[in-house]
Amino acid sequence: MIQDSFVDEALLSRVKSWRDYFAAKVGFKNHWYAACFSRELPEGETLTRTMLGENLLLRRIRGKVYAMKDRCIHRGVRLSEKVECHTDSTITCWYHGFTFRWADGMLTNIVGAPESRLIGKHKIKVYPVEEAKGVVFVFVGDDNYNAPPLSHDVPPTFLDEDRAVEGENFVIAANWRSGPEGGIDEIHRYLHRDSTLLLNVKGALPLGHVGVKAQCEKVEDADGPKGIIDHFNADKMYFEAEIDGVAGAVTGIRFADTGTGKKRTVSASCWLPGVLRVQGFPEDETTLYEFYTPIDETRHRCFMTMGRRCADEDEALQFRSRFVTRWKPYAIKNFLMQDVMARESTQHFYRHDRAWLEEVLTEEDFMIIEWRKLCARHHRGVQPPSRMD
Amino acid sequence: MIQDSFVDEALLSRVKSWRDYFAAKVGFKNHWYAACFSRELPEGETLTRTMLGENLLLRRIRGKVYAMKDRCIHRGVRLSEKVECHTDSTITCWYHGFTFRWADGMLTNIVGAPESRLIGKHKIKVYPVEEAKGVVFVFVGDDNYNAPPLSHDVPPTFLDEDRAVEGENFVIAANWRSGPEGGIDEIHRYLHRDSTLLLNVKGALPLGHVGVKAQCEKVEDADGPKGIIDHFNADKMYFEAEIDGVAGAVTGIRFADTGTGKKRTVSASCWLPGVLRVQGFPEDETTLYEFYTPIDETRHRCFMTMGRRCADEDEALQFRSRFVTRWKPYAIKNFLMQDVMARESTQHFYRHDRAWLEEVLTEEDFMIIEWRKLCARHHRGVQPPSRMD
Amino acid sequence: MIQDSFVDEALLSRVKSWRDYFAAKVGFKNHWYAACFSRELPEGETLTRTMLGENLLLRRIRGKVYAMKDRCIHRGVRLSEKVECHTDSTITCWYHGFTFRWADGMLTNIVGAPESRLIGKHKIKVYPVEEAKGVVFVFVGDDNYNAPPLSHDVPPTFLDEDRAVEGENFVIAANWRSGPEGGIDEIHRYLHRDSTLLLNVKGALPLGHVGVKAQCEKVEDADGPKGIIDHFNADKMYFEAEIDGVAGAVTGIRFADTGTGKKRTVSASCWLPGVLRVQGFPEDETTLYEFYTPIDETRHRCFMTMGRRCADEDEALQFRSRFVTRWKPYAIKNFLMQDVMARESTQHFYRHDRAWLEEVLTEEDFMIIEWRKLCARHHRGVQPPSRMD
Repeated sequence: MIQDSFVDEALLSRVKSWRDYFAAKVGFKNHWYAACFSRELPEGETLTRTMLGENLLLRRIRGKVYAMKDRCIHRGVRLSEKVECHTDSTITCWYHGFTFRWADGMLTNIVGAPESRLIGKHKIKVYPVEEAKGVVFVFVGDDNYNAPPLSHDVPPTFLDEDRAVEGENFVIAANWRSGPEGGIDEIHRYLHRDSTLLLNVKGALPLGHVGVKAQCEKVEDADGPKGIIDHFNADKMYFEAEIDGVAGAVTGIRFADTGTGKKRTVSASCWLPGVLRVQGFPEDETTLYEFYTPIDETRHRCFMTMGRRCADEDEALQFRSRFVTRWKPYAIKNFLMQDVMARESTQHFYRHDRAWLEEVLTEEDFMIIEWRKLCARHHRGVQPPSRMD
Repeated sequence: MIQDSFVDEALLSRVKSWRDYFAAKVGFKNHWYAACFSRELPEGETLTRTMLGENLLLRRIRGKVYAMKDRCIHRGVRLSEKVECHTDSTITCWYHGFTFRWADGMLTNIVGAPESRLIGKHKIKVYPVEEAKGVVFVFVGDDNYNAPPLSHDVPPTFLDEDRAVEGENFVIAANWRSGPEGGIDEIHRYLHRDSTLLLNVKGALPLGHVGVKAQCEKVEDADGPKGIIDHFNADKMYFEAEIDGVAGAVTGIRFADTGTGKKRTVSASCWLPGVLRVQGFPEDETTLYEFYTPIDETRHRCFMTMGRRCADEDEALQFRSRFVTRWKPYAIKNFLMQDVMARESTQHFYRHDRAWLEEVLTEEDFMIIEWRKLCARHHRGVQPPSRMD
Repeated sequence: MIQDSFVDEALLSRVKSWRDYFAAKVGFKNHWYAACFSRELPEGETLTRTMLGENLLLRRIRGKVYAMKDRCIHRGVRLSEKVECHTDSTITCWYHGFTFRWADGMLTNIVGAPESRLIGKHKIKVYPVEEAKGVVFVFVGDDNYNAPPLSHDVPPTFLDEDRAVEGENFVIAANWRSGPEGGIDEIHRYLHRDSTLLLNVKGALPLGHVGVKAQCEKVEDADGPKGIIDHFNADKMYFEAEIDGVAGAVTGIRFADTGTGKKRTVSASCWLPGVLRVQGFPEDETTLYEFYTPIDETRHRCFMTMGRRCADEDEALQFRSRFVTRWKPYAIKNFLMQDVMARESTQHFYRHDRAWLEEVLTEEDFMIIEWRKLCARHHRGVQPPSRMD
């Protein structure tokens, strides 16, 4: 028997309550994932993406985006090596002329063997696509799996009609799980102590901000997104630490006009299949949505997006300007990249499967554990090694 | 027990009729393979080659080529790192002075331990060598295996006395099996549609050329080469394809003076242990012989050679000139390199063993299947991982 | 069950008398190893080292050197990525503020979660450190293992009070076992035939120097270092070799003023956990001590040091000058680097575990076999894969 698992059974069996999360080294299948920004795929263009280990080819045809497996069914070459679209509705493999329909993947012709019995019977894998808020989402899953609505796989408020969204995406050299875990992490604020964002927004930054387990909210309605929310308690902050008897050996950041309770993030939450939402970041009216799309065992693509309610097009343009001139340099390229550095740094340790059993979590890490359990309860399948291209 | 196989038994067992071909990731042992061109190994020079995963050292001594394992029996260093030949007939390892005879591999001395009991008893592996048509062939096999004549492992006509052969060799980043399979492939002509060779020879190129199974000839005489020949049927060609209702969406290449039946390749054939022959390529009087020598799991050395009957030395010189000025730029560097690009492209897929079960062959690919079966019937052993240096 | 071994049991079982040596691909745990020279770690500085696969962070605080695992217990990041020492006695992880005491590894605070129950209960691994003769030694072993004195893990005479030691260290691209085996190797002198050191010291160099098994001395006192000494027999040298009937086909090196019996090395010895001592190298009054510290499966750090008795500071300065101007260029950079080249050359072969069964040792290699057996008898544990960072 060929074992189709990334993690040894002996190790898996030692984790009871989040076993499938441990197993999901390249993510959960049968979910919607961010593939690219709409602006990255203009009319008539093609784009390749590796998602959950599968190579995809995306193409925009008359406005609509289609996604197909980037591997000919015949001899396995990548269609993207030499894109040949002889008609609007098809793509032809450059090697033997196998021709597939974008809409359903059907093999409609083989130019070198037009009488082949395969024609009209075999299909290449195609993927459902949805476009929303300037992001192209792809459903990566089993053939014939009935894809649920996109709204089940993005955080609440993201799809709100009056919300404008801006963002950037990056390839991060760390397993995808470092994304949500690094974001929902209650006590990692120490990392950001020297971020230039703090001066820009005159933000306070405690050394630590301990979560309150009673305020952890689980969202598990059958007909909606599955997530876990930490409603921050402003009282549980520490601005000074004593180390080995030295009082104030290290201190957090305070500014004169903070502490009024106004300027601060109010909650962090994580949502299946791997999305972070932080309300009130980088400022009160703005929400951070970070989408983590697994590439392979050691990399993920991170979509750092920010959403803000905008009454009209004019407000949306103002937000776009503010994003480009302020949040991109200070929040994304500085503050959030500190998180990226930390995620990449954990990769060396967690690349060993045994690390998941050797880590020493504190009681303040309860959100991480709750997130793992939530995933284990609600995921729609573990992506297996045999799906990797 | 140490398993000495490249492919998992559970996968192997799913392929009945060409199981050993599936297993032969670095080729079949106990066969003759092309190592280099004669011109690459002048008198007194040494040359290293990796063949079927084994590191070899070749040296020409008084005209004759010898081949020895490039790994001292004592501590495993490569003799080639510092070649020391203190006599014509021997090579001495630079580390401890183990001295081996080229002719039979015998350990004739250890300069630092001249009274060792190993002397005269232990041997380094040596390989039978034959030189023909400007190519050095090496028999890579078991110790004491009685090598059959070279003529059993090259295609018929290659060794014909009046045949002149010219060629080049290249390292290709693909498993060796992509070579014969890519050559015997009936329906891959679509790939060559934009080759500059077509203009040069005013050659027609159909989109497809479907083989006729009844015309597939198997050559399996006990006392000769084992091969499979596809005699082309000029009637089964397609020059126009309809795609998704669009007639003539893609077309092949025709020239005014073709179609007379004169100018075309007449057969393609594959021969154990991995040689392609195409008669009438790149023009009527010329035959292509391509030798594929496995290097390791992911690479092979490809010898692209062309042979032509030449009545005398003068004709042979004319052929040499024609090869250099015409066939090298147009047939080798352009047309055949398109096949190389395709072979390298399949490597990403077939590097997974499961790909051999996931590929979807058409009925027109019957030659590929027949080739695999032929190999499984007539090979002289599967090269195992334990032979890899 | 997760197997925690580098070598397959089926192979291990075929080596009876030195099985654990075969298994010890990254060395023996619970021994003292050279980490760096004292001069490489000035006051207040930190230095990273990978030893036996474990990442260590070394720091000198008020003269004393401390060593800690370079991996936070919490999420596994390397402390060295951003060293933050808020007090003299501690280091704080840059990610979540986990703060550890250098002296005992105790978690003394978590700046972001100062009330965590982990504080005062969990420890990071710390390593015993000894500094002697300008070398920092670290004991790499199990928690709570009672480290024996350093003198048990270095060759006799190294720690002598009146001995001055000079040296250099290098990363070598070969398994650590190539170090002691290459040094104790009786018949490798042929390798050094063209060393410039020979002219510098007017040294004779035989082609071979066969050991005398009866003169092999084993040192195995319970309360001291464990080693094996080859007392050289000046009579068993060969300066001429006949190859395949050609007398004097290769010759060794003689100088006019040698052969008096004065100028020559008098013994070579190997000591657990991996140290070579050569008395009388590179000249009579000097002893070579080479320490081999495993880095990982394929690399080790080699400390080439030379010791000489010095009556006073003045003599020690003279020796230092002689080392820099003479022994460093001729003995280290030339002669000993020939051994390094040979060691790196064996790596390609011995990286296959089966190579240890395929090697063909001569009867003159008895010292190598005795060394392996000695290690198998006296080591304090095999470093397992699960300890590798």
